[in-house]
Amino acid sequence: MKKNISELFGTFCLTLFGCGAAAIAGGTVGAVSGLGLLGISLAFGLAVVVMAYTIGPISGCHINPAISIGMLAAGKLSVKDTVGYVIGQSIGAVLAILVLSTLLNGQSGFVAGEWAYGSNGWGEGYLGNYSMQAAFIAELVFTAIFLIVIHAVTSKLGNVTMAGLAIGLTLVLIHMVAIPITGTSVNPARSLGPAIFAGGMALQQLWLFIVAPIVGAIIGTLAWKYAIATENN
Amino acid sequence: MKKNISELFGTFCLTLFGCGAAAIAGGTVGAVSGLGLLGISLAFGLAVVVMAYTIGPISGCHINPAISIGMLAAGKLSVKDTVGYVIGQSIGAVLAILVLSTLLNGQSGFVAGEWAYGSNGWGEGYLGNYSMQAAFIAELVFTAIFLIVIHAVTSKLGNVTMAGLAIGLTLVLIHMVAIPITGTSVNPARSLGPAIFAGGMALQQLWLFIVAPIVGAIIGTLAWKYAIATENN
Amino acid sequence: MKKNISELFGTFCLTLFGCGAAAIAGGTVGAVSGLGLLGISLAFGLAVVVMAYTIGPISGCHINPAISIGMLAAGKLSVKDTVGYVIGQSIGAVLAILVLSTLLNGQSGFVAGEWAYGSNGWGEGYLGNYSMQAAFIAELVFTAIFLIVIHAVTSKLGNVTMAGLAIGLTLVLIHMVAIPITGTSVNPARSLGPAIFAGGMALQQLWLFIVAPIVGAIIGTLAWKYAIATENN
Amino acid sequence: MKKNISELFGTFCLTLFGCGAAAIAGGTVGAVSGLGLLGISLAFGLAVVVMAYTIGPISGCHINPAISIGMLAAGKLSVKDTVGYVIGQSIGAVLAILVLSTLLNGQSGFVAGEWAYGSNGWGEGYLGNYSMQAAFIAELVFTAIFLIVIHAVTSKLGNVTMAGLAIGLTLVLIHMVAIPITGTSVNPARSLGPAIFAGGMALQQLWLFIVAPIVGAIIGTLAWKYAIATENN
Repeated sequence: MKKNISELFGTFCLTLFGCGAAAIAGGTVGAVSGLGLLGISLAFGLAVVVMAYTIGPISGCHINPAISIGMLAAGKLSVKDTVGYVIGQSIGAVLAILVLSTLLNGQSGFVAGEWAYGSNGWGEGYLGNYSMQAAFIAELVFTAIFLIVIHAVTSKLGNVTMAGLAIGLTLVLIHMVAIPITGTSVNPARSLGPAIFAGGMALQQLWLFIVAPIVGAIIGTLAWKYAIATENN
Repeated sequence: MKKNISELFGTFCLTLFGCGAAAIAGGTVGAVSGLGLLGISLAFGLAVVVMAYTIGPISGCHINPAISIGMLAAGKLSVKDTVGYVIGQSIGAVLAILVLSTLLNGQSGFVAGEWAYGSNGWGEGYLGNYSMQAAFIAELVFTAIFLIVIHAVTSKLGNVTMAGLAIGLTLVLIHMVAIPITGTSVNPARSLGPAIFAGGMALQQLWLFIVAPIVGAIIGTLAWKYAIATENN
Repeated sequence: MKKNISELFGTFCLTLFGCGAAAIAGGTVGAVSGLGLLGISLAFGLAVVVMAYTIGPISGCHINPAISIGMLAAGKLSVKDTVGYVIGQSIGAVLAILVLSTLLNGQSGFVAGEWAYGSNGWGEGYLGNYSMQAAFIAELVFTAIFLIVIHAVTSKLGNVTMAGLAIGLTLVLIHMVAIPITGTSVNPARSLGPAIFAGGMALQQLWLFIVAPIVGAIIGTLAWKYAIATENN
Repeated sequence: MKKNISELFGTFCLTLFGCGAAAIAGGTVGAVSGLGLLGISLAFGLAVVVMAYTIGPISGCHINPAISIGMLAAGKLSVKDTVGYVIGQSIGAVLAILVLSTLLNGQSGFVAGEWAYGSNGWGEGYLGNYSMQAAFIAELVFTAIFLIVIHAVTSKLGNVTMAGLAIGLTLVLIHMVAIPITGTSVNPARSLGPAIFAGGMALQQLWLFIVAPIVGAIIGTLAWKYAIATENN
């Protein structure tokens, strides 16, 4: 149970810091320039760095259903724990957007609606106007890379001290490339929270941010296991 | 006594680097773009990273009365040390703004006044014009998260080498979201220094940056102890 | 064979993250400011940090033919491995730009052509309009510095935990200075991928990004060995 | 001798990366936004991080005459080594600006002259137009803080793995606040190089960037020794 609560707390923080940074501080505030694509990328990735050292020793710090399912596919997580983790992660992400919507909804100029609260999406009107095909490929390829890094740095040859930093920086890098395409999910829970509160397009497009990361996580797990890992890993 | 001086020095540096970055370099200087929300967030958080490795081995590097009171609530700090730490922290923050005001007050275009020197605040005319309610919730929730991270990474299962980095990066993340709301305090001493020198609104609103972080620190301590920590932590 | 695949994967990620960040997110997207020179520099350098901890234990994580040739010159890599590594690195970089071009080519406003996909170059019309002489000196000097750092931090006196971080941050620094001059290569494979897909000027100027980094890598290796290294390194 | 060459190389890199970033990439290049105050701060500080892990095991990585003189004052460096270090550091900084001027002098729009090549300065026309008094106080206070951090993290209680990171991040923080005031020196060698090539005001004002950092370094060393350090440090 403590493990599931730990995943809930970690996903709450990841979603609150990441989506909060995007929704509250992404653009310029008065004379002070906003976080921009770099700052938003750092918010998501550094949240993973911090949580890795905070709850890593308790639950492993997946805070992402795609990672938990990848670990299940790799035989590193039981079915029961996978279910508990995914439920905890989903609740955590929804609670984060509840806090974020409480902070934002009194704001003048703020309109709750499609793609609010850092929602993921694609197509006409969403950031760089990328196609659904580009969105699917990006989410799949980047989640696969993410899982390869995770399996490698947590393997026997990995550096225990630096593993959390390397995993979080990978998420920074993924956001640096993919924000204009999909806002960057690679994490179904992180997409679920905003979609529920934003509704509209964010909710209609939610399926891609569940399917593509999970498929990518399984492909990444297999690629690690059969193509890259040595017998010493 | 060395511990109290160490807290004084650490809080002096945190306040000088954080508020100094905001007040001197937050906006654009000539043709070179200013630090912006990302740079100011990094200034506060990296100051904690640096101080954690500098004075951590001497005093534990709280440099924040809310943290010291959280440690008191957790039974990890004596009442006597808590009083000495908070006094040292408060003096350090005031001295930092004394140096900052010396650097700034001859500057053309600089007007000492409400919300100068990186003061915290809220409402009409303060950065994102957020409400008092949003300010209180943000300061409370983020200080609670901050304390959970601190308790976790300094627990028996935490990584000693990375603890200071993880704590400081958490403060970076908190600033990334909360600067538009309150300028981000989560630290009564860091708010006290600028408020004394700025006067006006900063002084009138100072109470919130004492009350909300302390309540948040106690809530975070209890949440860690009863909801998240395992028997091995 | 696993080592060559590991180099392929690492160079794929470096090129996809670095060139992807430059081509997709370098400029401003809607109301959110782009990555800029700082963000692009971090994308290339943090990709090396991440890969160092991911594939470092498998292949040493060169992901750069100039480094592999420097290691050959230092007697730290066999001729056979050097050939295998360079082939793997080249294939990885080309595959990365294949993915990048798939993501980009449907984009309105995107024109595939000279210097697309984060291609390196110089002269009239390329970023800061620097001369070929400046381009050659920059690529040679910065690759030499890069190799000295790599030899030093992986020597007997180096810190095993921090070596990957130091190497990657060196690449961040190199990009911070050299992007306006050449877009920064110091890595023939990273230049090869975009040049093949962009054609035109990028392909005509490719030779410099093969010759200068390799000469620089050999000079850096000799400078380390005979001028800087002590008998304890 | 290897120690002096190591200091020469380290100061060469610090000056080339720091001043190079400021002079070549500080402002916007075409459609890509420049490094700005944050990027330039990171260039100087991360160069120290990288050099700490590169030449730290050889010479201790002072790469700054003020630090070497502070170490002399603390009894941690001999007079002979101090002289050799300062000479090496000065030559390294001058060579760095020689390379930088070679890269820049063919550039259209570039005018070599007062305050070129990342020169330090103050007063009318220099960045934020701060007074000489502000410049002196800033250089003195920040060098004192810098030395306290260095003595602390390299003391018996310091974390060997993180010391280099903490020292370099301190230089990032110092630049974040002080660039608008003086361009930030806290390092006589780093000021010497640009002043020789720029001449004019940079050369006339060079004295302050020799005197204030050295006085600050001695004050910081004394403050550490008598006010902060415990008997266990």
